[in-house]
Amino acid sequence: MCGIVGVSLREPLEPHRAAYSLYYGLYALQHRGQESAGIVVSRDGEGSRISKGMGMVPHIFAPDDLKRLQGNVGIGHVRYSTTGSSRIENCQPFIIDYKDGSLAVAHNGNLVNYAQLRAGLEGEGRVFTSTTDTEVIAHLLVKELLIHKDLVEAVRELMRILVGAYSLTLLVNGRLVAIRDPLGIRPLCIGRLENGWVAASESVAIDTLGGRFLRDVKPGEILMFNGADEEPRSARLYRAATTAHCIFEYIYLARPDAILDGRLVYDTRVRIGELLAEEHPAEADVVTSVPDSGVASAIGYSDRSGIPYRETLMKNRYVGRTFIMPEAEMRDIAVKLKLNVLGPQVKDKRVIVVDDSIVRGTTVRRIVDSLKARGAREVHMRIGSPPITSPCYLGVDMKSKGELIASQHSVEEVRRFIHADSLGYLSLGGLVRAVGMTEKHLCTGCLTGVYPVEVPGEKWTARQMKLSHFTP
Amino acid sequence: MCGIVGVSLREPLEPHRAAYSLYYGLYALQHRGQESAGIVVSRDGEGSRISKGMGMVPHIFAPDDLKRLQGNVGIGHVRYSTTGSSRIENCQPFIIDYKDGSLAVAHNGNLVNYAQLRAGLEGEGRVFTSTTDTEVIAHLLVKELLIHKDLVEAVRELMRILVGAYSLTLLVNGRLVAIRDPLGIRPLCIGRLENGWVAASESVAIDTLGGRFLRDVKPGEILMFNGADEEPRSARLYRAATTAHCIFEYIYLARPDAILDGRLVYDTRVRIGELLAEEHPAEADVVTSVPDSGVASAIGYSDRSGIPYRETLMKNRYVGRTFIMPEAEMRDIAVKLKLNVLGPQVKDKRVIVVDDSIVRGTTVRRIVDSLKARGAREVHMRIGSPPITSPCYLGVDMKSKGELIASQHSVEEVRRFIHADSLGYLSLGGLVRAVGMTEKHLCTGCLTGVYPVEVPGEKWTARQMKLSHFTP
Amino acid sequence: MCGIVGVSLREPLEPHRAAYSLYYGLYALQHRGQESAGIVVSRDGEGSRISKGMGMVPHIFAPDDLKRLQGNVGIGHVRYSTTGSSRIENCQPFIIDYKDGSLAVAHNGNLVNYAQLRAGLEGEGRVFTSTTDTEVIAHLLVKELLIHKDLVEAVRELMRILVGAYSLTLLVNGRLVAIRDPLGIRPLCIGRLENGWVAASESVAIDTLGGRFLRDVKPGEILMFNGADEEPRSARLYRAATTAHCIFEYIYLARPDAILDGRLVYDTRVRIGELLAEEHPAEADVVTSVPDSGVASAIGYSDRSGIPYRETLMKNRYVGRTFIMPEAEMRDIAVKLKLNVLGPQVKDKRVIVVDDSIVRGTTVRRIVDSLKARGAREVHMRIGSPPITSPCYLGVDMKSKGELIASQHSVEEVRRFIHADSLGYLSLGGLVRAVGMTEKHLCTGCLTGVYPVEVPGEKWTARQMKLSHFTP
Amino acid sequence: MCGIVGVSLREPLEPHRAAYSLYYGLYALQHRGQESAGIVVSRDGEGSRISKGMGMVPHIFAPDDLKRLQGNVGIGHVRYSTTGSSRIENCQPFIIDYKDGSLAVAHNGNLVNYAQLRAGLEGEGRVFTSTTDTEVIAHLLVKELLIHKDLVEAVRELMRILVGAYSLTLLVNGRLVAIRDPLGIRPLCIGRLENGWVAASESVAIDTLGGRFLRDVKPGEILMFNGADEEPRSARLYRAATTAHCIFEYIYLARPDAILDGRLVYDTRVRIGELLAEEHPAEADVVTSVPDSGVASAIGYSDRSGIPYRETLMKNRYVGRTFIMPEAEMRDIAVKLKLNVLGPQVKDKRVIVVDDSIVRGTTVRRIVDSLKARGAREVHMRIGSPPITSPCYLGVDMKSKGELIASQHSVEEVRRFIHADSLGYLSLGGLVRAVGMTEKHLCTGCLTGVYPVEVPGEKWTARQMKLSHFTP
Repeated sequence: MCGIVGVSLREPLEPHRAAYSLYYGLYALQHRGQESAGIVVSRDGEGSRISKGMGMVPHIFAPDDLKRLQGNVGIGHVRYSTTGSSRIENCQPFIIDYKDGSLAVAHNGNLVNYAQLRAGLEGEGRVFTSTTDTEVIAHLLVKELLIHKDLVEAVRELMRILVGAYSLTLLVNGRLVAIRDPLGIRPLCIGRLENGWVAASESVAIDTLGGRFLRDVKPGEILMFNGADEEPRSARLYRAATTAHCIFEYIYLARPDAILDGRLVYDTRVRIGELLAEEHPAEADVVTSVPDSGVASAIGYSDRSGIPYRETLMKNRYVGRTFIMPEAEMRDIAVKLKLNVLGPQVKDKRVIVVDDSIVRGTTVRRIVDSLKARGAREVHMRIGSPPITSPCYLGVDMKSKGELIASQHSVEEVRRFIHADSLGYLSLGGLVRAVGMTEKHLCTGCLTGVYPVEVPGEKWTARQMKLSHFTP
Repeated sequence: MCGIVGVSLREPLEPHRAAYSLYYGLYALQHRGQESAGIVVSRDGEGSRISKGMGMVPHIFAPDDLKRLQGNVGIGHVRYSTTGSSRIENCQPFIIDYKDGSLAVAHNGNLVNYAQLRAGLEGEGRVFTSTTDTEVIAHLLVKELLIHKDLVEAVRELMRILVGAYSLTLLVNGRLVAIRDPLGIRPLCIGRLENGWVAASESVAIDTLGGRFLRDVKPGEILMFNGADEEPRSARLYRAATTAHCIFEYIYLARPDAILDGRLVYDTRVRIGELLAEEHPAEADVVTSVPDSGVASAIGYSDRSGIPYRETLMKNRYVGRTFIMPEAEMRDIAVKLKLNVLGPQVKDKRVIVVDDSIVRGTTVRRIVDSLKARGAREVHMRIGSPPITSPCYLGVDMKSKGELIASQHSVEEVRRFIHADSLGYLSLGGLVRAVGMTEKHLCTGCLTGVYPVEVPGEKWTARQMKLSHFTP
Repeated sequence: MCGIVGVSLREPLEPHRAAYSLYYGLYALQHRGQESAGIVVSRDGEGSRISKGMGMVPHIFAPDDLKRLQGNVGIGHVRYSTTGSSRIENCQPFIIDYKDGSLAVAHNGNLVNYAQLRAGLEGEGRVFTSTTDTEVIAHLLVKELLIHKDLVEAVRELMRILVGAYSLTLLVNGRLVAIRDPLGIRPLCIGRLENGWVAASESVAIDTLGGRFLRDVKPGEILMFNGADEEPRSARLYRAATTAHCIFEYIYLARPDAILDGRLVYDTRVRIGELLAEEHPAEADVVTSVPDSGVASAIGYSDRSGIPYRETLMKNRYVGRTFIMPEAEMRDIAVKLKLNVLGPQVKDKRVIVVDDSIVRGTTVRRIVDSLKARGAREVHMRIGSPPITSPCYLGVDMKSKGELIASQHSVEEVRRFIHADSLGYLSLGGLVRAVGMTEKHLCTGCLTGVYPVEVPGEKWTARQMKLSHFTP
Repeated sequence: MCGIVGVSLREPLEPHRAAYSLYYGLYALQHRGQESAGIVVSRDGEGSRISKGMGMVPHIFAPDDLKRLQGNVGIGHVRYSTTGSSRIENCQPFIIDYKDGSLAVAHNGNLVNYAQLRAGLEGEGRVFTSTTDTEVIAHLLVKELLIHKDLVEAVRELMRILVGAYSLTLLVNGRLVAIRDPLGIRPLCIGRLENGWVAASESVAIDTLGGRFLRDVKPGEILMFNGADEEPRSARLYRAATTAHCIFEYIYLARPDAILDGRLVYDTRVRIGELLAEEHPAEADVVTSVPDSGVASAIGYSDRSGIPYRETLMKNRYVGRTFIMPEAEMRDIAVKLKLNVLGPQVKDKRVIVVDDSIVRGTTVRRIVDSLKARGAREVHMRIGSPPITSPCYLGVDMKSKGELIASQHSVEEVRRFIHADSLGYLSLGGLVRAVGMTEKHLCTGCLTGVYPVEVPGEKWTARQMKLSHFTP
């Protein structure tokens, strides 16, 4: 998972306004990636300026860095930690120079045919400096640009070749471009600023910059921004029969205040709770949530069930991600430091705990244990999604099947593992209803094992197949 | 406002277990002070070891610092920023050596007669290295110890002299001591650990260390810990007719998961919301809170009023206290970055917003404005406390009268200032009912201007007067 | 200017021994580049590991970084700051993956035909991520490797194409390779370690690792290291009629304790001083030097002239490169802090000051002024090289002609500018004699404006022309 | 060992000029203490401002710290690391407030009767926050000030009580004061700045600030500065029959460019080398030094003996004090990194190595071994001082007798231990001649075991005894 952003601002302005806007935009998207971040800006007639580093947005970019990044157009990227590739070479945006100009790419998603595409390019004698699919996208785009000389034609060809998820912000010779894959798997939207345009993974980045949300980038669309005062030029290159919006964005990934493909995520999560209360009622004294991911659904559950909502687990707001856990025997204390139980709130009570999903089950078990240790009589877990049984090949660092508890175990087995008195997962139908789309417009690969694009060795539906029949 | 902690652990153990326990205890009390922190540990037959610094707990103490702090008994302190005194000399604990031994002091509270006491000591030729009342307490205690040779007698004399609020943890020649002033103004409680004892400002520090909450230290009590396996020795030196527990701890200061003088703060805050709904009902579509301080009261308001509770203001969890706001024109963006409105949640709706208190009114006004900017039809502010009209002389860095909006303006004037459609403060009677004590057991100085001890130029009740008649 | 190093060590050993050896080797070469540094290591059957960053060696590599860099073979690089290119993308070693494997390159030197080579590669559709000639070398080498499949053949072709200075250490599929250009412009030598082999820009890196200096890499030679116990395989690919060793390495660049092409640099510098005393004698009371660059020559001057050598300018050893000069009016103090005059040593005396070279003249003038301010009666500047009149195109960041004072002004004009009573430059003949080679084996471009390779718009001799006639 | 400085500057000026001047002054004195540093400034009618910390001057004081330190008068301190007391509480200057005002003290030296003085003060009920004799001095001075109300009288009494070495700069109620003990053991001098006055441990701090050296503070003198334009008021409180200037300042401690009690240290060190050549001639090919401490003496030795001086040991100027030596087996490499031998300079040669002193002998042995490993035929060590046989009680952190090799072993035994072919120490007579005073004006305790003040269990002369008979 990653977050991307791009701005195209009016000149003249303070020369580092674009850099600051990207900085704040990335800060608003920090939840989509905490491993590294980067900003590239450009200005007419001048080369691009870049700053990137490992860590969180505010630690990477000092005010002096931002002041150095002069330009009126730019893109930015935050990256999630995925094993083995944590090195500065893999940080984005990725910048390259080629015969006719320069290109900077920020990418959210994952290519399913990365290995074949890279092997093909290597076969042509090309060399690579990173292990990211972003570099492959950059090489292919340059290749097509050198053939077609036209960005729209080059991107159309690119879309034909790439299989997978890709929302992109690009700087193509100093101009901002936004692209979303034909199935619209990862989100991407645009907004109007007082002094220009912004594209971002989630609408929250637009809100933060004081902008007005305009619309989502359409599946298969390319948007080319030509200065602050001109409407961006759009081309809908592919039009799939259906879409494949990632359902996990609604369950967990996106911020609750984001508007994704027309829906406020918070509303979806409240509805999830309401439907969960209908599907899996329980006799209880209190409904509670695992902070912060389950709050909206717990409120929805409480509303529908009539059982009062209370906070029972208090997060220490001062404990950051850089927290030190130095000694094995102190680990348990570190957990308590992060999340403390409001003892009297649960003592001798029957508690319904609502959370968004279960991955390995160990975190949930620790929570159930904590509640029981403080005297909870019964703990009923209610999960706002069906069991996650399959990995994601389209950009979410889901665990492998072996690590996904629901992939190996029945619901009853999971219930016993997590020490809960009862366990209820929301049905796929319920979840789809809560999102408010039909299932065929969503990617539910992690829940069903059926993917919207061909993944070697996995089941997939024909959605992507139809794509090639579309005329642009 | 400050937070204090102390531990007395069993030997032999890992030599830095006490330091780690104090570190985690202070981390749990971080909300009580973010300006500086310090830890002192000691071990039989060896001098004390100290580490302190400016900033937040995890930035001050590196693992290597903690490993250096070998000992089985110790105290710690976090300090709140108060103007003008932000220097390393004022960091606590305060350590001194004297003829018969050594003393370390961590103090939460404020002495009203600090200036007179210090002048008296200076008149005897004594010198001071800081501007804290803690140093005055240390000097006076040493003076009494040299006279009485007995700690209990010395502290009894100390209590006779000191006027104001003081919860203390001390190391007296390597032994942990906990003291609470005769009116019990600031909180202090003790707990049992698997391997010893802990004293702390709030029970959350005990929870974090995996300990069992035992009880509050009683007003006027001294507790002397003599090793991990022996019960602490207690002496009740003064017994006031009433107490003067700070009511603002319940309103805002303490963590919601703390148990203060027998009450879970969260429960009090839910009750505040319930009573607020009774005192100040409003026709509305949604009840919401200012995160995180108003959540519990908003839930209580929703429960009692039947109007659904929803989150409408989303905090960016990644924005820390060290946030950079470099350019004036970017300030507004920085505010939006911290707190984003869930637009669709408030558009065309009548919104009740619950918060704990109003100090200057500027923050509340910005929130009302944000909600209206996103389409809220009406905004009704409900405040979980009466107007704050007077400064605090007993340890809370309240603003001066001039800065307290309610001190200068009527409720209607405040309502207009904050742009709200209506404004309702909880009555003092309601607040006291919510806390569940009688008013005479509480200090309500900031709300009433009447204090429980003599403050020159202010009204005060006779509570402290009676004190001198008590026999220990 | 840059410094490079490479090691090939025996297995099994501590897994991070190679990284530590490279770290210490780079530390010994720190004078050749303080802007950035990087280390790449590799181990059979595993990919390469890299760490690089901006700044000085000890600040870039923390012990934890080095421990992570497991492998028994590796290369390292320190880079000098050159305007405009100070960004992490330009840090070396440069690593790329290609069809048949991977390549890491560390480069010291400069390609004169960089722009043409890069344009040619871009014309083939290739893309670039940096603005360094190192990336061009890497692309060309991969291209030749894919054609010839044999490293020696590929490098022979590379040498035919590249025009300029290049000493290289490479990792080619996990094996250490060292290459020096056919004119031997930049230094490169090899040494034997107890547990393997080392190649480095200067012998001081070998000394530091406790190794035995073996010999310089020959102009036009490739050395391939195949494990710690086998002699490296050598191939002399080109044999120029003459060489073009950089004369400025002897004057200033190399450390005095380095052995370059068979000569101890310190000895050369003492001889420079001796010949300077013969060419430019002066009546004086004391001979002194600008620390640290002129010490050896001043001692040589003193020996030959019989005038006693004394230190008169004392460097503050604690003033580092990161020194803060915050206020304009404090600049003068900052200069005095760095270099203090031993007043009584110069008062009423006639002083001969020996330095290695004059670039802009401003530093020398400040020194002359300081000595006169403390009472020196006469100051006679003696410079251990002829006037620097021309830029360097072969790897030294000399100033442009406009900034080189001797390029625009006569010796008498320079003397007046620097406020000296007399000024004597060593003749080219004297300098060449001091080095102990014939002039045709040296590059004297910066002193004569005649270069050993074709530089557009500049005079050059035919040395490189002959190259193409040699058979490998 | 420590370094102290004080300034009294004219108003109005930039408000942080005093802080910057103290910063640069301390930077110039960094060689006298690298453990911690502190600065205190004051301005009429305002309290003092302080900043201090552990480490080196440039790392402790950021530009923002200095800007915060507004005032026109101030003092500063650098502190040397002595075992066990490395904590922020012991950093100087030490500030206290008392009945009639405030006092800040920076101290260089050591009190021999510290323990008795502190016990006496503790007996009066006083408390201490540090383990430094500086705090004792501060308490005693306040005590006398409260009695005498007059600074001169108070200091006269202080001088009667204190036994040992003390050069002091003080801020007494916002005025700069400089004091030197009656024997003048540690140095202290004053200078004129364009905008005020400066007092400092060594004249190099005056040079750095662009000031004019005026004179040393006289033994037993107090100087009171009253603004920038008035001459400081002086009082000579005690006049010892002789002085006891520390001879080790000339041998090693002071910077070579310092003027101590009228003598340029560099000149003394050259003379040391000349006399050493007379006392201990040797047949040799080259004279060399251990950088940087032995350079001046080696040059003197070369001059007198006619044997050429050459550098043979090259220091890596980039290796700082914070150097990491992570692995035992890499230690040897770390040593080589710091100091490399110029092999050809010593191969097959007879080498005379001049150094200032021998403490434990291990460093010298490593140097002799290094030279022999690179082929030196003979190594003759010449030491610019007599054997150090006794500890220092007056402010230098000399080792204990057990660690001083010359305390336990004959010269021949030391020679064998250090692997030298011959070893010659300068005689005490020679050293005294080189300094140019009579022996009775110098403290030679570390060389003779006879001290100028009473040290329990050690021999001492009557110098201090006479003191009490002097009338002020």
